[in-house]
Amino acid sequence: MNKLYIIKIGGNVLDDEKSLKTFLKDFASIQAPKILIHGGGKIATKLGEQLGIESNYIKGRRITDAATLDLVTMVYGGLVNKQIVAQLQALHCNALGLTGADGNMIKAIKRPVREVDFGFVGDITAESVNSTLLYFLLKQNIIPVFAPLTHADGSILNTNADTIASVLAISLSKHFDTRLIFCFEKTGVLRDVKKEDSVITNLNKITYEKLLKEGCFHDGILPKLENAFTAIHSGVKEVLIGEHTNLLANTGYETKGTLITLS
Amino acid sequence: MNKLYIIKIGGNVLDDEKSLKTFLKDFASIQAPKILIHGGGKIATKLGEQLGIESNYIKGRRITDAATLDLVTMVYGGLVNKQIVAQLQALHCNALGLTGADGNMIKAIKRPVREVDFGFVGDITAESVNSTLLYFLLKQNIIPVFAPLTHADGSILNTNADTIASVLAISLSKHFDTRLIFCFEKTGVLRDVKKEDSVITNLNKITYEKLLKEGCFHDGILPKLENAFTAIHSGVKEVLIGEHTNLLANTGYETKGTLITLS
Repeated sequence: MNKLYIIKIGGNVLDDEKSLKTFLKDFASIQAPKILIHGGGKIATKLGEQLGIESNYIKGRRITDAATLDLVTMVYGGLVNKQIVAQLQALHCNALGLTGADGNMIKAIKRPVREVDFGFVGDITAESVNSTLLYFLLKQNIIPVFAPLTHADGSILNTNADTIASVLAISLSKHFDTRLIFCFEKTGVLRDVKKEDSVITNLNKITYEKLLKEGCFHDGILPKLENAFTAIHSGVKEVLIGEHTNLLANTGYETKGTLITLS
Repeated sequence: MNKLYIIKIGGNVLDDEKSLKTFLKDFASIQAPKILIHGGGKIATKLGEQLGIESNYIKGRRITDAATLDLVTMVYGGLVNKQIVAQLQALHCNALGLTGADGNMIKAIKRPVREVDFGFVGDITAESVNSTLLYFLLKQNIIPVFAPLTHADGSILNTNADTIASVLAISLSKHFDTRLIFCFEKTGVLRDVKKEDSVITNLNKITYEKLLKEGCFHDGILPKLENAFTAIHSGVKEVLIGEHTNLLANTGYETKGTLITLS
């Protein structure tokens, strides 16, 4: 099977014009099918403040009300997505921006109201993905660029970008040897969170469970690791957690982040 | 050749939730390949005011400065486009939202600075269109929904929605019998602008030039007619100018607007 790279970038890349430019240059140079998933960065927060849209939290969890949904639809689906696509086009990378609504790429279920009403939030699984159309676009050398938005029942919904990256990777693993790369602010998963040079270069199920028992992982990295192992157990060949500046190393054989495999 | 409908809607449909809903229901029911092009409506103006972005005019022509470009990228490419796409998906119409940057669909030239610097405005011709990819999507039963944005040299650019509709129609006329439909606030081109029942049902080159000499057409309709005849002279089979409420009649044989043909 052919290799496919599914790469997720977060706010730290998006908020700095120069970082983004360098990252996109590296991304464009990858000679294999690839998909980019981006978050929103501080632009949404800043614009929300300007427009007087308050961030609402219940029990520490952010709520997507109607005004916030319009805000993220504009910023994630419009401004950020189209600026990335236009920049990639200038780098001769035939990018095509998408939300989950476009081409019915990711059909979500609006999160049911239980203890908390999260508002316009979409829950998804690998079955939510229109992998036929996505595969088809990749075969035409199109580079899909996803904003973290899905849809259901005529409405756009807000969905976590890490989750979108995971379900895309899982659903496309029937067609490709997929490496899912999460770019974040550290070099990789650290054995000691205070020491940047303590990167765990390889993790499999056995070493993960051993380190987990030892209490090695702090709260910030645990959801990412759980996400990663869900992907690995669902057919994704490799998950890499690393820094966006190391993208080229991390799409090669001598990776600089944490490479997660089944065994 | 198969029939293709290219339909442009303006602000009057977008600004009213109920009108838009009815229009999209009619649009979704058209049983043929189709493309939708939308403008921006009053939402961009309203949001611009909230954000303190001033509309700049030079010699009566609107200027797209950097702040205005970000605004229209958010509103046209994000909010309006994705809301339309999500609503069409709920109507079982597999819509896919696009700007000219996505898939390099419409590559523009940034308008050269002569007497006036129009800012981030993209000029286009039928040669600007990636008709191969667009044809390909249509063959997959995808319904492209275009925001009035193009791109050049790594930047999104603002381009008139009527012009985008025209160049798409011209470039796809090699693959389809194309009917280009401009929806506007009147039933059709009127012989007497004060009489809504004076619709000219058919116009060809000869009748157009005759009525033009008689001074029949007012300033507001002339650019639309010039645009229409440019399309007709460039291979588009039919252009229809009519009201969005008459979409279903205007995609059939017994049209209610002004049907423009070569002869």
